Amino acid sequence: MVIVDNLSRRKIDVELGITSLTPIATVEDRLKAWQEVGAQPMGFVLLDLAREYERLLQLLRDEAPDAVVHFAEQRAAPYSMKSSACKRYTVDNNVNGTHNLLCAIVESGLDVHVVHLGTMGVYGYGSHRGATIPEGYLTVEVPQPDGGRFTEQILHPANPGSVYHMSKTLDQLLFFYYNKNDALRITDLHQGIVWGTNTNLCGKDPRLINRFDYDGDYGTVLNRFLMQAAIHYPLTVHGSGGQTRAFIHIRDSVKCVQLALDNPPVPGEMVKIFNQMTESHQVGQLAQKVAHLTGAEVAHLPNPRNEAKDNDLTVDNRCFLDLGLEPTTLDDGLLTEVVDVARRYAERCDRRRIPCTSAWTRTQAEAINP
Amino acid sequence: MVIVDNLSRRKIDVELGITSLTPIATVEDRLKAWQEVGAQPMGFVLLDLAREYERLLQLLRDEAPDAVVHFAEQRAAPYSMKSSACKRYTVDNNVNGTHNLLCAIVESGLDVHVVHLGTMGVYGYGSHRGATIPEGYLTVEVPQPDGGRFTEQILHPANPGSVYHMSKTLDQLLFFYYNKNDALRITDLHQGIVWGTNTNLCGKDPRLINRFDYDGDYGTVLNRFLMQAAIHYPLTVHGSGGQTRAFIHIRDSVKCVQLALDNPPVPGEMVKIFNQMTESHQVGQLAQKVAHLTGAEVAHLPNPRNEAKDNDLTVDNRCFLDLGLEPTTLDDGLLTEVVDVARRYAERCDRRRIPCTSAWTRTQAEAINP
Repeated sequence: MVIVDNLSRRKIDVELGITSLTPIATVEDRLKAWQEVGAQPMGFVLLDLAREYERLLQLLRDEAPDAVVHFAEQRAAPYSMKSSACKRYTVDNNVNGTHNLLCAIVESGLDVHVVHLGTMGVYGYGSHRGATIPEGYLTVEVPQPDGGRFTEQILHPANPGSVYHMSKTLDQLLFFYYNKNDALRITDLHQGIVWGTNTNLCGKDPRLINRFDYDGDYGTVLNRFLMQAAIHYPLTVHGSGGQTRAFIHIRDSVKCVQLALDNPPVPGEMVKIFNQMTESHQVGQLAQKVAHLTGAEVAHLPNPRNEAKDNDLTVDNRCFLDLGLEPTTLDDGLLTEVVDVARRYAERCDRRRIPCTSAWTRTQAEAINP
Repeated sequence: MVIVDNLSRRKIDVELGITSLTPIATVEDRLKAWQEVGAQPMGFVLLDLAREYERLLQLLRDEAPDAVVHFAEQRAAPYSMKSSACKRYTVDNNVNGTHNLLCAIVESGLDVHVVHLGTMGVYGYGSHRGATIPEGYLTVEVPQPDGGRFTEQILHPANPGSVYHMSKTLDQLLFFYYNKNDALRITDLHQGIVWGTNTNLCGKDPRLINRFDYDGDYGTVLNRFLMQAAIHYPLTVHGSGGQTRAFIHIRDSVKCVQLALDNPPVPGEMVKIFNQMTESHQVGQLAQKVAHLTGAEVAHLPNPRNEAKDNDLTVDNRCFLDLGLEPTTLDDGLLTEVVDVARRYAERCDRRRIPCTSAWTRTQAEAINP
C-alpha cells in the first residue's frame, strides 16, 4: 500500500495562514504511528498527480496495484471561489490530476480499479420537490417530434454549485469516456458532507488524529457548528438555513471506500456510482439541534454562496446499504463526542478565521462585507 | 478587432512534419493582404490562452470587447488520440484555455458575449433510430419511484467519441456553470465537419487562402476524399462507411459565427446552443459520390476509431435557418471546385502522410498496423 500525495492541503494551510483545530503530525510520524498501532505498513511517495505524469506512470508500472483510491483534488467549495487564481488552480489541478491518472492506467496496460471521491454536489440542490436523487444514473423518457418516445438511462444531469463542484462534474465525463473507450473499471463515490474526526484505527494514537477544519474556507457546516458550540461562538447559519444537505460520518466514509474496493465493477461494466451519504438535514435545523444540545446561540448571517434559499433532498443510497453499510447516524451522543474533541483543542482556534470570506459573486461579496 | 493566437496549429505542423496542402502565409502577410482587399484592419496578439492569464485579463481590460469568438482549442480527434502526451495536451490546453477566458471575463467585470466553437460530436453518434438531435437541450420526462413524473429541460447528455470531443463536453459544463453563477452571455456552436477552403473574402487574395489539411490526423473526411480524388489516390473509407456525420461549408461556418454575434443571448438568458451544420451524409455514400464525380477508386480500410459501425443522424438546425442562413449544399459543382483547389496544390502533397496512424485503443492499433 502506497500513499501518493503532493501535500497540497498542508501547503494551502501555509498560504491561508490557518491550521486544523486538531494538531496534524508529519507524514513520517503518522506512518510510524500507523505501524505502531498494528496496521499494515504503508509507503509514501511525494508526487504531484497533475504535473508529474512520467513519475506516475513509472510508479504504476512498479507497483502494479489492483486499485487506486483517488482523493487527490482541491476539495473546498469556498476556496475554489476565493479568487481567479483559486478557481483556476482548482480546475487545472483537479482535471489534470484525474486525467493523468486515467491516461497513465491506459498507457500502463494494467487493469486497475479506480475508486474516486466525488461529491453529492454534482447533482445540484435545486431538484423538484419530492424527486429522489438516484445513484448516478437517471432513467428518462424522451418524447420525439413525431409523437413517439424512447426510454434511456443517462448520467444524471450535472448542476454544480461552485467551481469545486464543477471540477467533479468534469471528472464524471472523464470517467464516462475512459470507461467507454478503454474499458477502465471505475467507481465514483458521490459523497455528502463528512463530519466527525476519527476512524477506529485513527483513534488509537494521538499522532493519527485527522484534520478538523473550522475556518470559513475548509470547515464544513456540521463540524463548524460543533466547534463553535465548543468555544461558545454563535453557530453561523448563512442565508435562510433552508439548505438541505447530505451527511456521512468519517467512519462510514472510510467503510464505504472499503466496500467499493471489495466490490469492483466487473470487466466491461459501466462506471459504478454510489451515493456515499447516510442522512439529510436542513442546515438551520442542524444548528438548532446543536444549540439545543450545547446551549449555543445561533447567528443568522448573509449567504456568501449563490444558491437556492432552500431545497428538498431525497437521496437513494441503497447500493452501500445493500453491501452491508451500517450507518453511524448523527445522534446526540456522537455530536457530543465531537464537541469534546473540539473542546480539547479549543485553544488552537483562531476566532478571526471563523467567518466565511469567499463570496460566489460580487453581489454576495457586497452582502458579506457591506 | 484583434486576433489572439499562440500559433499552436502551425507549431503542430512542425511537430508532425506536415503542412497544409494550401500554402499558408505568415500572420503578418495575411493581415496585410486582408487590409489590401479592403477588409477591416485587425490587430494581432501572440498569447497562450491556457497559460498567460494575467496578459489575457489585461488585454480584455484594454480592448473592452463586445464579444470574443473562441476557437483557441486543439481541434483534431485523431491528434488527441495519438499518444498520452497528445491526450493530456488536448485536455489541459482546451479546458484551461476556456476556463481562463471565463475567469478573466468575470474578473474584468465586463459584459462580453462569448461565441465558442463546439462540435456536433458532444452528442455522440449512437442515438436511437429516428431520434432528432435538438439544439443543445433535451426535454425529458423523469418517472419517479412513487409513480409520478416530472418534465425537465436538460443539457443534452454528452457522449464524446474521442479525447478531443470529450474536451468540448467539459467546455459545455464550464459554460453552464459560468452562465448560471456569473450570468455570462455565451453562445456554443455545435459544428459539423467543415469542408471547402475559401470564404468569399479569403478568395480575393492567394495569401488569404485557408488551411486544407489532408493528413491522417488533421484532415477531415470530405476534404480528404476531394484531395485524394485530385491526386488519384484511392478514397480512404475506414470501417464500414456506415458512419453518418454532419457537414457544413466553410462559408456557412463563418456566416453562422456572424449570425451568432449579431444575435447574442439577452442578459440572464441561458447558454445559447446552435447546431452549426447544414446536411448529414454517410461516409461511405460520400466516397461513392466523390468517386462517381471524379472517377476515383474507393479503398476500404480498418477503422482506427473505436466507434459504432453505423448510425443515423437527424439534426435540428432551425436556429440558424430561422436567422437567415442559406445553406451552401454539397452539390456537384462545389465538390468539383474543391477538387480543383486540391489539384492546384497537388505537388505539395506528401502521400506518406495520408494514412491514419492514430488509433483509439490497442485493438484498433493492431488492426491498422497488423
